[in-house]
Amino acid sequence: MFDRIWLNAKLATMDGEAGSPLGLVEDGAVAAKDGRIAWVGSRAALTGSATETTDCDGAWILPGLIDCHTHLVFGGHRAAEFEQRLNGATYEQIARAGGGIFSTVRATRAATEGELLDAATPRLLGLMAEGVTTVEIKSGYGLTLADEMKMLRVARRLGAQHPVEVVTSLLAAHAVPPDWPGGAEAYTGFVVDEAVPAAAASGLADAVDAFCEGIAFSPAQTARVFEAARRAGLPVKLHADQLSDLGSAALAARFGALSADHLEHASAGGLQAMAAAGSVAVLLPGATYFLREIRLPDVPAMRAAGLRMALSTDMNPGSSPARSLLLMLNLGCTLFRLTVTEALLGVTRHAAAALGLTDRGVLRPGLRADLSLFRVGHPAELCYWIGGNPCIGRVVAGR
Amino acid sequence: MFDRIWLNAKLATMDGEAGSPLGLVEDGAVAAKDGRIAWVGSRAALTGSATETTDCDGAWILPGLIDCHTHLVFGGHRAAEFEQRLNGATYEQIARAGGGIFSTVRATRAATEGELLDAATPRLLGLMAEGVTTVEIKSGYGLTLADEMKMLRVARRLGAQHPVEVVTSLLAAHAVPPDWPGGAEAYTGFVVDEAVPAAAASGLADAVDAFCEGIAFSPAQTARVFEAARRAGLPVKLHADQLSDLGSAALAARFGALSADHLEHASAGGLQAMAAAGSVAVLLPGATYFLREIRLPDVPAMRAAGLRMALSTDMNPGSSPARSLLLMLNLGCTLFRLTVTEALLGVTRHAAAALGLTDRGVLRPGLRADLSLFRVGHPAELCYWIGGNPCIGRVVAGR
Ligand SMILES: [Zn+2]
Ligand SMILES: [Zn+2]
Repeated sequence: MFDRIWLNAKLATMDGEAGSPLGLVEDGAVAAKDGRIAWVGSRAALTGSATETTDCDGAWILPGLIDCHTHLVFGGHRAAEFEQRLNGATYEQIARAGGGIFSTVRATRAATEGELLDAATPRLLGLMAEGVTTVEIKSGYGLTLADEMKMLRVARRLGAQHPVEVVTSLLAAHAVPPDWPGGAEAYTGFVVDEAVPAAAASGLADAVDAFCEGIAFSPAQTARVFEAARRAGLPVKLHADQLSDLGSAALAARFGALSADHLEHASAGGLQAMAAAGSVAVLLPGATYFLREIRLPDVPAMRAAGLRMALSTDMNPGSSPARSLLLMLNLGCTLFRLTVTEALLGVTRHAAAALGLTDRGVLRPGLRADLSLFRVGHPAELCYWIGGNPCIGRVVAGR
Repeated sequence: MFDRIWLNAKLATMDGEAGSPLGLVEDGAVAAKDGRIAWVGSRAALTGSATETTDCDGAWILPGLIDCHTHLVFGGHRAAEFEQRLNGATYEQIARAGGGIFSTVRATRAATEGELLDAATPRLLGLMAEGVTTVEIKSGYGLTLADEMKMLRVARRLGAQHPVEVVTSLLAAHAVPPDWPGGAEAYTGFVVDEAVPAAAASGLADAVDAFCEGIAFSPAQTARVFEAARRAGLPVKLHADQLSDLGSAALAARFGALSADHLEHASAGGLQAMAAAGSVAVLLPGATYFLREIRLPDVPAMRAAGLRMALSTDMNPGSSPARSLLLMLNLGCTLFRLTVTEALLGVTRHAAAALGLTDRGVLRPGLRADLSLFRVGHPAELCYWIGGNPCIGRVVAGR
């Protein structure tokens, strides 16, 4: 009566009661039918059989992990720049030598779709090997219509070629190309009038993202991008209050954003507005670590506001060349003092919410049968170890 | 005339001239005979053939990586304690609840040799998967003669069962067991009179290590342990100046220690004494990170003193549950501001020196044919990425 049953497993459903949200089940079972979870709970209570039964030998089953904020499609990398900085070069010297984000833009523009695909594939496979079943991928290193669409097509192809769900965001409003005639205002016009409509019409983008910051787009320009997204019927997300407090958490909330991400400088009021709007706070400890930022997101204020927190790699070549979501669990706990429960919800249930996905992120009948299996004694070990990969299996839509 | 040749490779010999110690060779080849490197250099200059030829397809070859400071044999883990601390428990509360190092001692004592072996194996395999060919493993969670010897036997068995060289250190002077009659002085007497002689006589230990710190052993007690090691003909190493400056870097130097490790609080004088003695400074950024230490080892002073620096995981369940040596490259650069060159020398050439091994750590004719192969564009990428594993092969003694 089921397609497949996983037996002799311990479960962390991420769907428990208020006091114990991990929803731990010591001797559990999961059954799938037609790609959906058909049954989940204590093994003793399971009735029915399946075509295929897997003995998990005591492994833990969690929902498939979700990396909800990545820039994993890009040309080149910035290892040489990393080395130069350690050798004493200043950011200015590196920028003058052609480094920084625009070196990635140049490399991404110069790369063919096939080259971008080849470069991104090992990065995606690395995430998948850790139990990731859903990955968000942003554009944002093309900054022309053709190159932004190229990046999104590569993201879609990655999802089509591998057993993983790829969710895309148009991030044409990532940076103002230095050579754009008319500067930031004119480039915002391009995003509003061309990039967002094209991304929506082509079906290549699932959401629209922007970078609201002194070095990128102002709140007014961001609002214009968000209005364009609303007209196009696309949900929005925001790189918000990372380097300074421009009130962008509140701006994201005003547009009912799925998430606002980074938030190191967000005010308590901004966080409360997000909570009221149902926006998720996406925390990116890889960037905090790699940039050696002193300022941390205000996790106690997020807790007080009842804000849902997600955790993600922010995988990108400039500020977070992080290729491990499991490692973000440890970084989130160690640097941001997230609890184990918060960290684990951050890569499952709350990461799904950050993408507007209501069909995954918890083990619950009716939802997608996306599972990750780990050889650990307790899910807390997923947060505790620094490196290493205890993932022994993953299931996407029942297979 | 050779047993094996690796062609079409890029080399980082770690054996270059003073100005370019990485010794990069763009189109290189390595040849091995009888487990030793027989030839290394530019492919064009290679003459001779081999039974087996491997086309490396442009991959980089480095010396096999060396993790020169681990405690990777231990019972249990401390993930629950990690979770409790994030939930707000103080160190005192955790100690009173039976946590801390003595919980690991209890679990290690309670475990059979087979159980310790099974627990350690995936941790060792994880290091090996990253290109590690030599691992140092310390005792120090037994703290009785039988249990210290048990740990060392497990370490030796790990080396016998897997294609990796295991080097052992007796760390009976890791902590004073709280139940030891007569306290620290009496326990030091046990280490001096029983543990060190037994480790030497059995051949189970390649070196003697100690933890010189207010919470562990005084400089005078450490000196007694080192004198016992000298009588037994074993070289010494030291956990030195990690939490306070007790002058233990200088103490290590006075005994001609292979290395002094941690060194966050070491004085410039202590570092200079180490350099003069030829001791290596082993840096352990995993512990700094995990303990959220503010005080960093004084890398500029180490450079000024001409001290060789190694990098290691310090893999242990309490202060550095780090299972990735590649990640330590990034942590060493990001937290300690090591250069890429220093970091790479720290897991090859200087890590070998920290273990007193003169037959490995660089690619040079006559040395062991221990190689690690990486699919990267440049060795700097090994330091730049956070997580992910580009290792595509490893060779131990030519195979
Ligand atoms: Zn980002
Ligand atoms: Zn140690």
